[in-house]
Amino acid sequence: MSAADAEGTEHHPITEAVLARLASTPDARTHALMAALVRHLHAFARETRLTEAEWFQAVSFLTAVGQTCTDRRQEFILLSDVLGLSMLVTDQNHATPPGGTESTVFGPFHVPDAPRFALGEDISGGAAGEPCWVQGRVLGPRGEPVPHAQIDVWQADAEGFYDVQREGLAQAQARGVLRADADGGFRFWTIVAEAYPIPTDGPVGRLLEATGRHPWRPAHLHFMIAAPGHERLITHVFRRGGRYLDSDAVFGVRPSLIADWIRHEPGTAPDGTRRDAPYWTLDFDFVLQPAAASAPARPEEPSA
Amino acid sequence: MSAADAEGTEHHPITEAVLARLASTPDARTHALMAALVRHLHAFARETRLTEAEWFQAVSFLTAVGQTCTDRRQEFILLSDVLGLSMLVTDQNHATPPGGTESTVFGPFHVPDAPRFALGEDISGGAAGEPCWVQGRVLGPRGEPVPHAQIDVWQADAEGFYDVQREGLAQAQARGVLRADADGGFRFWTIVAEAYPIPTDGPVGRLLEATGRHPWRPAHLHFMIAAPGHERLITHVFRRGGRYLDSDAVFGVRPSLIADWIRHEPGTAPDGTRRDAPYWTLDFDFVLQPAAASAPARPEEPSA
Repeated sequence: MSAADAEGTEHHPITEAVLARLASTPDARTHALMAALVRHLHAFARETRLTEAEWFQAVSFLTAVGQTCTDRRQEFILLSDVLGLSMLVTDQNHATPPGGTESTVFGPFHVPDAPRFALGEDISGGAAGEPCWVQGRVLGPRGEPVPHAQIDVWQADAEGFYDVQREGLAQAQARGVLRADADGGFRFWTIVAEAYPIPTDGPVGRLLEATGRHPWRPAHLHFMIAAPGHERLITHVFRRGGRYLDSDAVFGVRPSLIADWIRHEPGTAPDGTRRDAPYWTLDFDFVLQPAAASAPARPEEPSA
Repeated sequence: MSAADAEGTEHHPITEAVLARLASTPDARTHALMAALVRHLHAFARETRLTEAEWFQAVSFLTAVGQTCTDRRQEFILLSDVLGLSMLVTDQNHATPPGGTESTVFGPFHVPDAPRFALGEDISGGAAGEPCWVQGRVLGPRGEPVPHAQIDVWQADAEGFYDVQREGLAQAQARGVLRADADGGFRFWTIVAEAYPIPTDGPVGRLLEATGRHPWRPAHLHFMIAAPGHERLITHVFRRGGRYLDSDAVFGVRPSLIADWIRHEPGTAPDGTRRDAPYWTLDFDFVLQPAAASAPARPEEPSA
């Protein structure tokens, strides 16, 4: 039996009855997860002496979270993010050795099948914001180039909105999929990332307000990088010196992911193009980890 | 600090960071609830070493639960019921002294503003099932009559469906609101309750299947009884000798709530009417508790 017994499970017949009912769960992992869920859920209700009105408020809140979800909005991921659960799960599934690029939260705004771009192209799609040239390399743990990695990148625009938050857009904006070159190099134009508030017009926004929390995230650019033989990396790059780096609403900041984004006056950009307005540059290398060949091969291992 | 510290909260920076962020919650009770939720949720994820795929599966499941809810179906209440949480919350909010009628789960099928009936009328509304005469008294803790209590009653039909589960019904069936007489007496015709499965066509049904559990509830009739000066009572009366009394899918059975439902051959019923087909009778008295005048007067006390 587990540590939860210290909380006195054996003295609570209803908890014992539910655990007994779960005993015939066919799959061992499902059984372990459900039993732990019941123990912790019941311990929470007992510790707080949850009232019936509070229980009903929780039911109503969770219902509203579910009903706020659409094919363009995932309010349950947002809820998990603001409760720090997403970052905890990220943490315990990615023990990054020194020198490796750390993971952070996936967030609710990724879109599968974003448009594909050639290296050097502009992924902004007309999104508002000052232009930003992003370049870097995808490397292995010993600094060797990882060729041809697939790089999925997405970000909010200068007004703080992802394209999926805007009604009636004819095309994707500020998101795209690229493929690194044989030396692991990648480069593209986008817009500079700015701090923005997570959506506050739904139940998660009401939760933040009820707990006296601000909804802001520091400026960042999302990356998901996949290459054969390596663990898939889901992370952000944050802007050094920006606001909210020490109070990210979703607890996603790691010091190793903060980089210098440099603003330039009009002139010749790194790709040789002439820029008539100020622009930014970001140079960041990602260090992937080898795929864990001996990792537990549960059928439910990450595939999302 | 609380028992959760024994689980090692202080060694988990992400949990500490979330708890610190909650520190400015204006309402003390909200703060206590949210902090306990974060500690138990994080402890669950750590204890199980929840994977990212499992986290995503949980997000998808909860989203589906929310999206299954309509104005006639509350899948989150059903989820709470099958996890034993509803019964735990009922338990810890109603410490019934000996002789008092015990509470049980509210369930997802109550409807506010059900049709009103005079004593002795038939609330079945044409629902399928053998007729059943129900009578009894509403009493106080010393056996004194409680006059004019409002009695809300609801149940499934012979095929196991509540009216709200049937599409296109022109009127309510097998539910109604009555008012007891000056002596606390009540009486009405309905149909006999039968065992039925909770809805299995949604995510909660899939959860039961994944955990090897049957979805059946033993035959019961729901009551919600309210009278000035007394604590509102939410309970069922179960049929003695029926199936599933020892394996109710929602853990709602209490021995004190099991009663004799008696089947009669055609003849004269207790209300003097002539019955040409077999019918049933149930006689059950309810003993209410005085309203807890000195109970903590939190604004969120039961009102649902």
